[in-house]
Amino acid sequence: MGNIFGKIFSITTFGESHGAAIGVTINGCPAGIPVDLEFIQQELARRKPGQSKITTQRKEEDQVEILSGVFEDKTTGTPIALLIRNKDQKSKDYSHIADKFRPSHADYTYETKYGIRDYRGGGRSSARETAARVAAGAIAKLMLKEFGITFHAYVSQVGTLKLDKHYTELDLPKAEENAVRCPDQEVAQQMFDYIDDIRKQQDTVGGVVTGVIQGVPAGLGEPAFDKLHAELGKAMLSINAVKGFEYGSGFEGVQMKGSEHNDAFYTEDGVVKTKTNHSGGIQGGISNGQDIYFNVAFKPVATIMQDQASIDKDGNKAVVSGKGRHDPCVVPRAVPIVEAMSALVIADYLLIARTNKVKF
Amino acid sequence: MGNIFGKIFSITTFGESHGAAIGVTINGCPAGIPVDLEFIQQELARRKPGQSKITTQRKEEDQVEILSGVFEDKTTGTPIALLIRNKDQKSKDYSHIADKFRPSHADYTYETKYGIRDYRGGGRSSARETAARVAAGAIAKLMLKEFGITFHAYVSQVGTLKLDKHYTELDLPKAEENAVRCPDQEVAQQMFDYIDDIRKQQDTVGGVVTGVIQGVPAGLGEPAFDKLHAELGKAMLSINAVKGFEYGSGFEGVQMKGSEHNDAFYTEDGVVKTKTNHSGGIQGGISNGQDIYFNVAFKPVATIMQDQASIDKDGNKAVVSGKGRHDPCVVPRAVPIVEAMSALVIADYLLIARTNKVKF
Amino acid sequence: MGNIFGKIFSITTFGESHGAAIGVTINGCPAGIPVDLEFIQQELARRKPGQSKITTQRKEEDQVEILSGVFEDKTTGTPIALLIRNKDQKSKDYSHIADKFRPSHADYTYETKYGIRDYRGGGRSSARETAARVAAGAIAKLMLKEFGITFHAYVSQVGTLKLDKHYTELDLPKAEENAVRCPDQEVAQQMFDYIDDIRKQQDTVGGVVTGVIQGVPAGLGEPAFDKLHAELGKAMLSINAVKGFEYGSGFEGVQMKGSEHNDAFYTEDGVVKTKTNHSGGIQGGISNGQDIYFNVAFKPVATIMQDQASIDKDGNKAVVSGKGRHDPCVVPRAVPIVEAMSALVIADYLLIARTNKVKF
Amino acid sequence: MGNIFGKIFSITTFGESHGAAIGVTINGCPAGIPVDLEFIQQELARRKPGQSKITTQRKEEDQVEILSGVFEDKTTGTPIALLIRNKDQKSKDYSHIADKFRPSHADYTYETKYGIRDYRGGGRSSARETAARVAAGAIAKLMLKEFGITFHAYVSQVGTLKLDKHYTELDLPKAEENAVRCPDQEVAQQMFDYIDDIRKQQDTVGGVVTGVIQGVPAGLGEPAFDKLHAELGKAMLSINAVKGFEYGSGFEGVQMKGSEHNDAFYTEDGVVKTKTNHSGGIQGGISNGQDIYFNVAFKPVATIMQDQASIDKDGNKAVVSGKGRHDPCVVPRAVPIVEAMSALVIADYLLIARTNKVKF
Repeated sequence: MGNIFGKIFSITTFGESHGAAIGVTINGCPAGIPVDLEFIQQELARRKPGQSKITTQRKEEDQVEILSGVFEDKTTGTPIALLIRNKDQKSKDYSHIADKFRPSHADYTYETKYGIRDYRGGGRSSARETAARVAAGAIAKLMLKEFGITFHAYVSQVGTLKLDKHYTELDLPKAEENAVRCPDQEVAQQMFDYIDDIRKQQDTVGGVVTGVIQGVPAGLGEPAFDKLHAELGKAMLSINAVKGFEYGSGFEGVQMKGSEHNDAFYTEDGVVKTKTNHSGGIQGGISNGQDIYFNVAFKPVATIMQDQASIDKDGNKAVVSGKGRHDPCVVPRAVPIVEAMSALVIADYLLIARTNKVKF
Repeated sequence: MGNIFGKIFSITTFGESHGAAIGVTINGCPAGIPVDLEFIQQELARRKPGQSKITTQRKEEDQVEILSGVFEDKTTGTPIALLIRNKDQKSKDYSHIADKFRPSHADYTYETKYGIRDYRGGGRSSARETAARVAAGAIAKLMLKEFGITFHAYVSQVGTLKLDKHYTELDLPKAEENAVRCPDQEVAQQMFDYIDDIRKQQDTVGGVVTGVIQGVPAGLGEPAFDKLHAELGKAMLSINAVKGFEYGSGFEGVQMKGSEHNDAFYTEDGVVKTKTNHSGGIQGGISNGQDIYFNVAFKPVATIMQDQASIDKDGNKAVVSGKGRHDPCVVPRAVPIVEAMSALVIADYLLIARTNKVKF
Repeated sequence: MGNIFGKIFSITTFGESHGAAIGVTINGCPAGIPVDLEFIQQELARRKPGQSKITTQRKEEDQVEILSGVFEDKTTGTPIALLIRNKDQKSKDYSHIADKFRPSHADYTYETKYGIRDYRGGGRSSARETAARVAAGAIAKLMLKEFGITFHAYVSQVGTLKLDKHYTELDLPKAEENAVRCPDQEVAQQMFDYIDDIRKQQDTVGGVVTGVIQGVPAGLGEPAFDKLHAELGKAMLSINAVKGFEYGSGFEGVQMKGSEHNDAFYTEDGVVKTKTNHSGGIQGGISNGQDIYFNVAFKPVATIMQDQASIDKDGNKAVVSGKGRHDPCVVPRAVPIVEAMSALVIADYLLIARTNKVKF
Repeated sequence: MGNIFGKIFSITTFGESHGAAIGVTINGCPAGIPVDLEFIQQELARRKPGQSKITTQRKEEDQVEILSGVFEDKTTGTPIALLIRNKDQKSKDYSHIADKFRPSHADYTYETKYGIRDYRGGGRSSARETAARVAAGAIAKLMLKEFGITFHAYVSQVGTLKLDKHYTELDLPKAEENAVRCPDQEVAQQMFDYIDDIRKQQDTVGGVVTGVIQGVPAGLGEPAFDKLHAELGKAMLSINAVKGFEYGSGFEGVQMKGSEHNDAFYTEDGVVKTKTNHSGGIQGGISNGQDIYFNVAFKPVATIMQDQASIDKDGNKAVVSGKGRHDPCVVPRAVPIVEAMSALVIADYLLIARTNKVKF
């Protein structure tokens, strides 16, 4: 279980980091969406390793192939299967980790849960799986483009270095102009240096990605349990290394008084708006037409280039040595993943919302 | 949609705050669990209004009736229906809010989504719905008691007032000894005064509830999407007024380096343990046998005893006046809800984990 | 598991035959449907025991109470809970079956599966559960009335006595004018006598219910697995005592050649129709706008008024004696259940179909 | 929607008959099952076209590739993706059907539902999709082999020619010794000649496949809605061309009296058995440990080698000409599909049954 996400517009992913391929089948994608293979490929390029010296130097081509569900460049309503072959799976020697449990990795938990595990590069627990999400998210984005809904994520914190600006003060697309994916070029440079320094220390550091969704109509979200932010939160928390999620005023908001926090309604040209947006575009679990924004916390990557004390499968002491090529900080590459998961949630909920009234 | 939670051990809730009743049907609860009606009733008592002057003075008896699924005081494997009649539904005058949208409430979003809404006391969007969750969660707790799994939640922040102790430094059951549900009696008193002061200001304030789950065996959680913390996060975010969720090192953890954050494995008397627990008991989305702990952020309650500017259904300016009896701070009553949702997630995942291996 | 039916418009049922109550929660019913309590009550009256001497003389009032989801006589989009108290649950003596396994009942299988069972009157396995389905189906019918979709089921076979007319030759509403629910009054009388004769023999007999759904638009059904007839089939097979399902040409159709069986398309006044309808209104798992019709086979009721050889819980020989009041033939009362399940399937699929195209 | 089957052990299929590939992802397959690629390939060979002159002469290599979820020849508990490239997709001319609706095919319904359709060879509605089911079913069979559960399906009727023997009188594996897949070699020859005659007439004919499942332990099935036979029925009805399903005594059983139909319990060497098995191994929707058997009705294939009157997309009259290579009777090739779907249902329900009791 656990490899399906979404109710109507749903995805099923598969694949290990060092198996033959990873991929995804989208079930429930509506018919009639123009499919732009180039765009899917670009989205994958944003996630792929080796983009700069602060991301891992592994080479993954991530060439996507559409196996079904698209005919004459349009979705047909049948399942869309996307396949990405694993190119970088050299017959490496994994004996150094085959029987050891790397600290804060999923080695021990997979072994305990399944009694067997594909130890090559983390197997299924590797963030390689997120490439499939990005590919599927690209289709969701293409669908939502038809409705004028857009997604912008960016890096707002790296280690102790915070971008102290609200998203409304930023030119969001500028995040794509630097390796860190922070829309403030000055802070971006500081973050770059910070990460590069960590890299030189053979260490890693965490960070925060902020997501912004604009153009969402009022009415999306399914209380009581499938509130829009609850599903968004789950989507984000399901991304590798994520430790926290907050939307709107978030954890800061608990310090406010109700009289400060409440978002006053008003109308402008017949459109209902709110003066502030501490609600983060969601009230009672349903979108209210305002911008949706949220933060996602990523822990420092567990793989470090240092020796660490651990145990082996038999419970004996063992030393895990850092090897291979890894990200010193995962957030720059996490940006397109956050966007992809956002798009998958919104696509699903937009379709579900069509069933809320007897006459649509 | 949206009123079902869980995959195997799942619940379906129903009910509006001022309708005839609220209730829940548990589907997939295993047979053979001793059912203690008294215990369910106690759990409801922990959530009910009117427990002290810092909680709303509304009177809800919350008398639960078991309609099915229990025979000779044991669960039978068939659906368990629990019914709670709404006692406090006097024929009040709701005309003052029938056509107005209260700020930061779900009035506007429900109206937009469904084209109709039960405006009496918030209807379905009222936190009254959580009584059904607490009742179902009590059954989940009774099941998990059989496996030695326990749940403790407590208030760790009220407004700007933080309890600066880690859960491991606290005597958790002591939280039940004061009205705030904070296990540090001194801080509890400060919080009480803080909330009481807010109440006198006719205002409200937010807070944080910390949840701790102990005794969970390694192996629970279903990657890639249904990671244990992702489902826990969704469960928490689905509770009224929740704005954020973090587990283990959470948002703080992003500032750490990998070399500090990684939890080193060791064995003690043949049991695998970790020296630190920044992972919060979950690695790769699967429990590792260590304590699971997390924080849940609650915004200030939207209903305040003050006049607020808003609009009516036709988009005209309108003033919403504070009326009725409401909580100045929701977190003391949220404690049993956080525990209930935790228990529901663990019960579900414990059952699912039985299907992970071909021979169990 | 197993107590939820449907994906969008879904129901969760609960209740044992001799527990406090049975009931159902409808999740995903669209807002804005006028709810006619009288109509729900009438549908239940069609299913209830004691309608004539050929149905069981047990008295069940089946008074339904709407607990939620309806406001000012319209559905609000929130879950609709319907409650039916069990009135006829006298403190009978069930010791004669408490430890015995009645032949062809679910006593043995429930005992084996759950290790415990509510032996009073069959508990959850009793057809009493279908009252909840009929109540929910009434809401589905009210919804589908808004779209001009109608449901007619009738008895087409009792034991060896078959009604040798196709549904197109019959005046379907006339089925409600006799106790057997066969639209041909002459055959109905023969069936009545047949069943009455069986009843006098202290025995039971099986039968067939034919279902006809009219007014379904083309486009409903979700291949590959959730084909419209596959879900309809499952719905019917989930009714107590059902042993078979066929639609359109069914089992007879296997004897035909493709050249005879194929339904030729033509247009009439711009509407696409087929000259014959061996497809039963469904092609490739999707409705084609023609009438949907099908047959449902019911076995003879297992409870007979005779002594039967069996075993007890310990595997010892035991005699099961017929006691109580039971139906000699279940099909007359099954007619509204077949209609209800049909309505639930169509309601669900009609909503799902709204998600098939990007622009609706 | 509609491309996922199963709850725990679930499959997601994709692919069109003339697209790049078809395939399936198995989600929830337990870890530790030995995977025999040879066996999967053999199962596909049983389904593939061109096995004899009474099956279509199209050549499909159906070479399966395992993309994930298997490590060192064992399942790992992660999703298993199986890929089958479409080899026979020559750039044929489909203009003769691009704008026409073939009678009793899914052309019209797909066009109406989605507003677009892949007209090449039926696209998604083609029975080619079932190759993915057979591949997944092979994995399910490998799992169930560990529990001693076996599957035998065979052809029991072709057109008007019925095999008048109960499955208990037959040597089931012998079905694989002839092209028709009927275990009675004499009747098999008659069926072969019958089908060959139909083929020469450029026509098609229907048939019945009987399925037998042996070794299923008591306790599988999830009432009320997910009764074992209801899910089995849905599984069968979801196969292309299926028009009916019956289990145990089926439609014949309605003619019996309860006193004849009831299956008397007895014990033999401490094992509970029934003297007769009209129940078909399922009582109250739960397996009782006896053999499960059922019939599946297949209509005559819609594609015939004759001209047929129909309409085009604009509603104008059009003639559809028979072209290509098609099966005169689908049942011989349907045998492995019936077995595959049976195995998928049993695998799923066997896992779910582990969650029925608190202590397993």
